Amino acid sequence: MNVIEIINKKKNKMELTIKEIEFVIQGYLKDTIPDYQISALLMAVWFNGMNNNELANLTEIMARSGKIVNLSAIPGKKVDKHSTGGVGDKTTIALLPMVAAAGLSVPKISGRGLGHTGGTIDKLESISGFKTDLTIDRFIEIVKEIHCSIISTNFDLAPADKKLYALRDVTGTIDSIPLIASSIMSKKIAGGADALVLNVTFGSGAFLRKYMDAIQLGKEMVHIGENNHKQTYIVVSSMDQPLGFAVGNSLELQEAISLLNNQGPEDLMEICLFIGSIMLIAGGIVKQQKDGIEILKEVIENGQAFDKLKEMVKRQGGDQRQIENPELLPKSKYKDDIYSDFKGYIHKIDARSIGEASMLLGAGREQKNSTIDLSVGIILKKKKGDSVKKGEILATLHYNDHDKFEKVHDKVKSAFDIRNKKPAYKPLIVALIDRYGVRKPNLS
Amino acid sequence: MNVIEIINKKKNKMELTIKEIEFVIQGYLKDTIPDYQISALLMAVWFNGMNNNELANLTEIMARSGKIVNLSAIPGKKVDKHSTGGVGDKTTIALLPMVAAAGLSVPKISGRGLGHTGGTIDKLESISGFKTDLTIDRFIEIVKEIHCSIISTNFDLAPADKKLYALRDVTGTIDSIPLIASSIMSKKIAGGADALVLNVTFGSGAFLRKYMDAIQLGKEMVHIGENNHKQTYIVVSSMDQPLGFAVGNSLELQEAISLLNNQGPEDLMEICLFIGSIMLIAGGIVKQQKDGIEILKEVIENGQAFDKLKEMVKRQGGDQRQIENPELLPKSKYKDDIYSDFKGYIHKIDARSIGEASMLLGAGREQKNSTIDLSVGIILKKKKGDSVKKGEILATLHYNDHDKFEKVHDKVKSAFDIRNKKPAYKPLIVALIDRYGVRKPNLS
Repeated sequence: MNVIEIINKKKNKMELTIKEIEFVIQGYLKDTIPDYQISALLMAVWFNGMNNNELANLTEIMARSGKIVNLSAIPGKKVDKHSTGGVGDKTTIALLPMVAAAGLSVPKISGRGLGHTGGTIDKLESISGFKTDLTIDRFIEIVKEIHCSIISTNFDLAPADKKLYALRDVTGTIDSIPLIASSIMSKKIAGGADALVLNVTFGSGAFLRKYMDAIQLGKEMVHIGENNHKQTYIVVSSMDQPLGFAVGNSLELQEAISLLNNQGPEDLMEICLFIGSIMLIAGGIVKQQKDGIEILKEVIENGQAFDKLKEMVKRQGGDQRQIENPELLPKSKYKDDIYSDFKGYIHKIDARSIGEASMLLGAGREQKNSTIDLSVGIILKKKKGDSVKKGEILATLHYNDHDKFEKVHDKVKSAFDIRNKKPAYKPLIVALIDRYGVRKPNLS
Repeated sequence: MNVIEIINKKKNKMELTIKEIEFVIQGYLKDTIPDYQISALLMAVWFNGMNNNELANLTEIMARSGKIVNLSAIPGKKVDKHSTGGVGDKTTIALLPMVAAAGLSVPKISGRGLGHTGGTIDKLESISGFKTDLTIDRFIEIVKEIHCSIISTNFDLAPADKKLYALRDVTGTIDSIPLIASSIMSKKIAGGADALVLNVTFGSGAFLRKYMDAIQLGKEMVHIGENNHKQTYIVVSSMDQPLGFAVGNSLELQEAISLLNNQGPEDLMEICLFIGSIMLIAGGIVKQQKDGIEILKEVIENGQAFDKLKEMVKRQGGDQRQIENPELLPKSKYKDDIYSDFKGYIHKIDARSIGEASMLLGAGREQKNSTIDLSVGIILKKKKGDSVKKGEILATLHYNDHDKFEKVHDKVKSAFDIRNKKPAYKPLIVALIDRYGVRKPNLS
């Protein structure tokens, strides 16, 4: 087999066989195929895409390039949850204890954040002592005991994807829907869960800007998942403004804790209940989404979800007192408000600008090895549709460095688009995709 | 400047600036930009092409990546000639002495052959002692004395093109018309001639299969040439069957010598007179093509062109006696005929198969470092349109190795497509392209 012929086939829109894909991926992993040939092939894929067969084969070969996590020791159906990321997205922290309290086992394997969106692992590490580099055995043990646990990918999970992603990152081939789909799904398949619920976001704060791209990515991931005998559900949601009010590691953790105390922001609650209820369906706990939502509301109201988070924190070495009293979580030295220069309605809050501002304050990584400041971030005081007076507070910046404050002040202020008319309502959750196709969310 | 942003611009069909192209080419030459980023960019160019500005800029930057040959010591206009290659293409060997005898200075810098088409340098090295690794000074001196000389690219001619070409060769990005155009033209510009006459071939034996691709390549090269203040003429010709009868190094040299003795094959004579007369126009020797053709016929008939070849051979250290008596040129140990199994007309002779067969006999390089056998090759006995009887000879194989003969016998035989009807006539030369556009060849 010859890699140049394989590149030419892809260039000329011919389907690659499973043997050809295997040859390429194995050759790249073993360094018998050099990166300059792989990057040419990736660019040809960027232009010509991959069909369903190619996608399923590529994903499975990448998933099997390392070990597949064996979760069979955990009884019942195991459901994994993933998000393509967004600004202020702390759903995983709230959802894990919620669905676990409802009796579903959620073994969550997670990566770290990069760029303007934060990572769940980073947010949880705001808790003193909280460990995410557990062994797989200990991880499984915790899930068996309390139905949920979270670990970082500290082992060889889909190493072919890792190597390919690093190459895509420096060759302009990240923004390819089939490559995104196969990258996410290879890790999910290697993660070993029985069913998957994936939140695909689109809009200014998301990786994908366009609705249609989100739908396309969702469909491709469902195809790959079902092909691998994993029930796969995609929740497509808008990420035009940050989710909730808090952006930044410790600040977002605190907001997730508030939600478990039934004091969370409306939009965050809406998406947690939606995704959580789909997870309960995927796990066979309920048949109808509205039943799932009822149970989830109940475990919040009766404190079981909150207790579940404490149990998980305790088992992973974290300081439970910080959950009970979030005032003990990392705090920035300074905070200052940003005021509105105008009277009107919040028409838009550019999520990407807020995410970048938070990163510039120190909350995110510009590069893979950057260290992050857990205490800093932004608390929005207004959200889309809210009215605002001139001189009223738009947001509060939490920071440790006056120079950084100066840099981001204007960025945050100009992220707010204030107009004299109330903006039209746009739904947060716009579609649900499963093996039966794409449909509007419908809770009845 | 950031190479990933440059890749993204090209992916998204935006024009690259001269600074961006310079950054990429210089970075690649200095190894500050790795090959995997360049190959991704090349693949994006394969898909999205380059516009006229990008093409002109890329070519000039590549041309200036090494030294530009200074030919100013040679009086008058210097004209360079190039062909995109074909099977049996020995035009350069015949043309150089023809136009030099007509008073035109032709300093020819040439590469070696690769694959199924032979190189002019290889063919000339059939002459004992013939040296092509002259110094530039000696080369210029010979052209001053006798109007023609040929050297191999034994110096730093457009090193950026050399490095890029090697990468294209292994990443499936050779067959990109703008990349071919800039590669050829960068070397021609670095070669320092005042005007260029380029033969672009298309068809089964050529690098480009399709007429429209040849026209496109020709137009792009004219644009680049004129942009660099070099009058540029493109002769587009068909390469469906080999040119002339002989394929193989020594055999082709002998056929070129025959032509200079006014005994050459019709098609070879036709194209030599056509290209040669355009060269004489480009060099300001004549104004009209028919005048050029008249002069060229004269220098063949009066023996001046033949004498010119002898002079060049002598000055480059070669054995003149082999020109006077081509029987002294390298000869294969064996020759055997291939017979027709059918009666009919030669409908087609697949040039690529004949070229590959000759390569397999040892006449060409499969890899850059292969050594070649100067004596072997194929003499066609029939050409397209000829009638053939069953049992009549189609071709004669000249070879040194019986195993190789066995391998290529059937390949050569099946290259002949014999049918019961005479094929329609198709012209050899199909278009002339210059700064005024594309036109049909017209000798009146």
